[in-house]
Amino acid sequence: MTTNPTPQIWLYDTTLRDGTQREGLSVSIEDKLRIAKRLDLLGIPFIEGGWPGANPKDVQFFWQQQEDPLKQAEIVAFCSTRRPNTIAADEPMLQDILAAGTRWVTIFGKSWDLHVTTGLKTTLEENLAMIRDTIEFFCSQGRRVIYDAEHWFDGYKQNQDYALQTLEAAFKAGAEWLVLCDTNGGTLPHEVSQIVEAVNSHLSVVSCQEQMTTDNGQLTTPQIGIHTHNDSDMAVANALAAVMAGARMVQGTINGYGERCGNANLCSLIPNLQLKLGYSCIGEHQLNQLTEASRFVSEVVNLAPDEHAPFVGRSAFAHKGGIHVSAVERNPLTYEHIQPEQVGNRRRIVISEQSGLSNVLAKARTFGIELDKQTPQARQILQRLKDLESEGYQFEAAEASFALLMHEALGGRQQFFEIKGFQVHCDLIEGKETNNALATVKVAVSSKNILEAAEGNGPVAALDAALRKALVNFYPQIATFELTDYKVRILDGHTGTAAKTRVLAESGNGYQRWTTVGVSTNILAASYQAVVEGLEYGLLLHSQAEAALRASS
Amino acid sequence: MTTNPTPQIWLYDTTLRDGTQREGLSVSIEDKLRIAKRLDLLGIPFIEGGWPGANPKDVQFFWQQQEDPLKQAEIVAFCSTRRPNTIAADEPMLQDILAAGTRWVTIFGKSWDLHVTTGLKTTLEENLAMIRDTIEFFCSQGRRVIYDAEHWFDGYKQNQDYALQTLEAAFKAGAEWLVLCDTNGGTLPHEVSQIVEAVNSHLSVVSCQEQMTTDNGQLTTPQIGIHTHNDSDMAVANALAAVMAGARMVQGTINGYGERCGNANLCSLIPNLQLKLGYSCIGEHQLNQLTEASRFVSEVVNLAPDEHAPFVGRSAFAHKGGIHVSAVERNPLTYEHIQPEQVGNRRRIVISEQSGLSNVLAKARTFGIELDKQTPQARQILQRLKDLESEGYQFEAAEASFALLMHEALGGRQQFFEIKGFQVHCDLIEGKETNNALATVKVAVSSKNILEAAEGNGPVAALDAALRKALVNFYPQIATFELTDYKVRILDGHTGTAAKTRVLAESGNGYQRWTTVGVSTNILAASYQAVVEGLEYGLLLHSQAEAALRASS
Repeated sequence: MTTNPTPQIWLYDTTLRDGTQREGLSVSIEDKLRIAKRLDLLGIPFIEGGWPGANPKDVQFFWQQQEDPLKQAEIVAFCSTRRPNTIAADEPMLQDILAAGTRWVTIFGKSWDLHVTTGLKTTLEENLAMIRDTIEFFCSQGRRVIYDAEHWFDGYKQNQDYALQTLEAAFKAGAEWLVLCDTNGGTLPHEVSQIVEAVNSHLSVVSCQEQMTTDNGQLTTPQIGIHTHNDSDMAVANALAAVMAGARMVQGTINGYGERCGNANLCSLIPNLQLKLGYSCIGEHQLNQLTEASRFVSEVVNLAPDEHAPFVGRSAFAHKGGIHVSAVERNPLTYEHIQPEQVGNRRRIVISEQSGLSNVLAKARTFGIELDKQTPQARQILQRLKDLESEGYQFEAAEASFALLMHEALGGRQQFFEIKGFQVHCDLIEGKETNNALATVKVAVSSKNILEAAEGNGPVAALDAALRKALVNFYPQIATFELTDYKVRILDGHTGTAAKTRVLAESGNGYQRWTTVGVSTNILAASYQAVVEGLEYGLLLHSQAEAALRASS
Repeated sequence: MTTNPTPQIWLYDTTLRDGTQREGLSVSIEDKLRIAKRLDLLGIPFIEGGWPGANPKDVQFFWQQQEDPLKQAEIVAFCSTRRPNTIAADEPMLQDILAAGTRWVTIFGKSWDLHVTTGLKTTLEENLAMIRDTIEFFCSQGRRVIYDAEHWFDGYKQNQDYALQTLEAAFKAGAEWLVLCDTNGGTLPHEVSQIVEAVNSHLSVVSCQEQMTTDNGQLTTPQIGIHTHNDSDMAVANALAAVMAGARMVQGTINGYGERCGNANLCSLIPNLQLKLGYSCIGEHQLNQLTEASRFVSEVVNLAPDEHAPFVGRSAFAHKGGIHVSAVERNPLTYEHIQPEQVGNRRRIVISEQSGLSNVLAKARTFGIELDKQTPQARQILQRLKDLESEGYQFEAAEASFALLMHEALGGRQQFFEIKGFQVHCDLIEGKETNNALATVKVAVSSKNILEAAEGNGPVAALDAALRKALVNFYPQIATFELTDYKVRILDGHTGTAAKTRVLAESGNGYQRWTTVGVSTNILAASYQAVVEGLEYGLLLHSQAEAALRASS
């Protein structure tokens, strides 16, 4: 008795093409190269690189890929069928695709009669010829072809016969994958199931009737793929429905980036397929990197990560309610649908206004601080937390500031330096473009006052520079710290520029990162506070590391 | 022959309770009251207000509701079953619920044996008694009861018999709705379908066997509801699957707010149920307000709206790719799954680096500017756009700045005033907390130089105040303008505080809102630029309105 091998689902990433259609997202060639490398490591077998010829960026991307190819993944070039009434071999557009030098090419064509007649303004017959010719041309040039049937579901619902003819044309012309696209994102899962099943059986009949066989005489079975958009909030559900109805390729993007409401999110699809439905997509050691890969891509494309994203979001395994927190600490199964580590995420205990004492204690433990529920300090931290939150502070994202607050309540906050104040002056009267800001800071180290001034291309940069200048002689490790991200949020938009500002500053020392918070009606005061706490927390980490080193030697 | 009436789905909103469990979301009592009023207008029949007694905020909220009740909706109080080994009538917790004075009460209880024994630490029998007693108590007090079966799907999968016993207990005790909760969000749609169908037929048998009848002798048919979470990216798909399997109440939240990855998003559910599946949920004139209601709630809870949200997001009907834009202008059906107006949203043509000339022209038309493709101005606008975007500007969100840019390229940018420069001074050395920033601005109106200075609780407020002071004598309408929102984005986090800053400023004049953009390494210069363009665009709107008035009189 043999057990069935786990069915394989072929993942096809289109972050670099469809993903970049997202409003607000734009990438450089370097960004695209970095993302492709990361997806290769993640074990995605097909990576769509773009449409070479449609824009110069994509042409260059494919050249670079030829010089420095990926380890495992196939880079795929994307292109439409030939234009109406032309000869495929003579189309410069298709020559550009050949020049991209990929083994695989994805050709998209029209399935919906309405798009043929009103979009392409050609006949239904000519559209079939366009699909056939284009695929045959690429096959004759030794390329392997994936066919994307654009507007498949709408087309099928409007004119089933014609839609099936387009797919048959692609299949007979040599396309190895037939990908059904829900281009407008309007289809619901029960429709996807029905239609994918119907297509699958129709194509099996075609394959049989036409006696389509492979080189070694086996019947060619058509391979179905699915490409969905999220306009009905169904992209992932639709892709799962298609797979359960027989599709074996899933097209999607990292973080669900894509036009309008986005594409099917691979970060949700992969764990659902692999952990819940038992399909095989990527290696277990690769699934463990999913959260990191999601954040890497959001960082490269310079978009804030969705903190609430399923599986990979920062909040995906965060517990806020008091009941949840105590239960999840006893038995994670009670409130977690999977183990966060399986996708490289982690459980978090969230500190907020609603926090009970048990949350604060659980959080303190994650910073290595053991607190007794009975001690006045524990209640004191909770009270201080609530006071600060009512002033607009938020510690959910600023864990380093929360750690400093706990140390302070326990009387153990190490005072590396003392802040005495700052002055900032900006002068743009003369149109001076660089170093137009001057900051003066006053700090005290071991009761010694230090006054330092620095210029910068903006007031926060000048403040940061002055502060480092004042402290680096006492703490040379500050030279290795850097501000890695900086976010500003206006707390009450209604009061306009007089509103309170919350600044989150992320700092790093090369191998660790931490976030601090500052709040003020003055954006410079809020920034200064966050930057100051960032330096302080960095010094704390350094001193803890030194202490650990001493203890171990 | 009679046609079947459209089946009604009862919507149950839990934004004010489950929604507030979202990390980063906190609301005041006033916020909760405003949201409840808005949901009432939207036609949501059940609005869960909170757990009175669990926190003082919720107690007060229900008091206020008694004084100033909603027009249509039922405000529902939420509460757990009585504690183990107590008498329901003697439980202060349940007395608090009665005191809230609602007609409907939602009681949640345990369905999963694991939670009974390890969470509640009681026997399976006692849990059944807790469910029964609590519901009977509220029914005896004249309340109508909705029963939320917590962890229903996990419990059913682990111990089907016991899970069904808990539901039977609730049903026999008098609960009118039995709501199946996917508390951990780990269930997939095909499982939801199967389980809801199984539950429905099981309860019909129970109802028949027990001869449960209503006052007029009709057999009581159990009413099933669904409550889902989004941990598998399936909250909306699961709710739809449940409805298609027979559930008639759907619990969810506006914008999908909720713990971890959120709850089922009513903004996706309602249009899917109503426009695609033909169920009846809210009035057509209410569905038309969905986008506005979604934005209202995000504004009240002070969270940035999800621009890419299905149906209600700003990008949900945005067209970026050149092919899409020309096709959608010819026939909206080709690239839109519903008409945006049905949910109160609108089509947008997006301007970005990738824009072809046809996008720019289409966008210009939305501002009433007719441009010919052949004119040098059209190419000039496109070039200027690309140059500015490479410097970090983004016009996708800053349509007012884009309009000014177009007017400039066409030589028709009205010069209301000329910017000469500014100076800002902040001094926090003395720990002065208010008016710690001083700004001086120099502007020219009709070649007359004006120098004005103002103080503020921050540098941007001071700049804004000085600028208004300088201009209001010439343009008194400026007194009605206000800065309604202000966002800061760091463009390249890697360079820390020296990074380029992009500021988006949203301004309003009481009945219109517009957004402008500024970019600089100096956060003050970027803010100033956005504020200045905001005033300029406001003046432009005013002068256009005046011209229209003159023309019509």
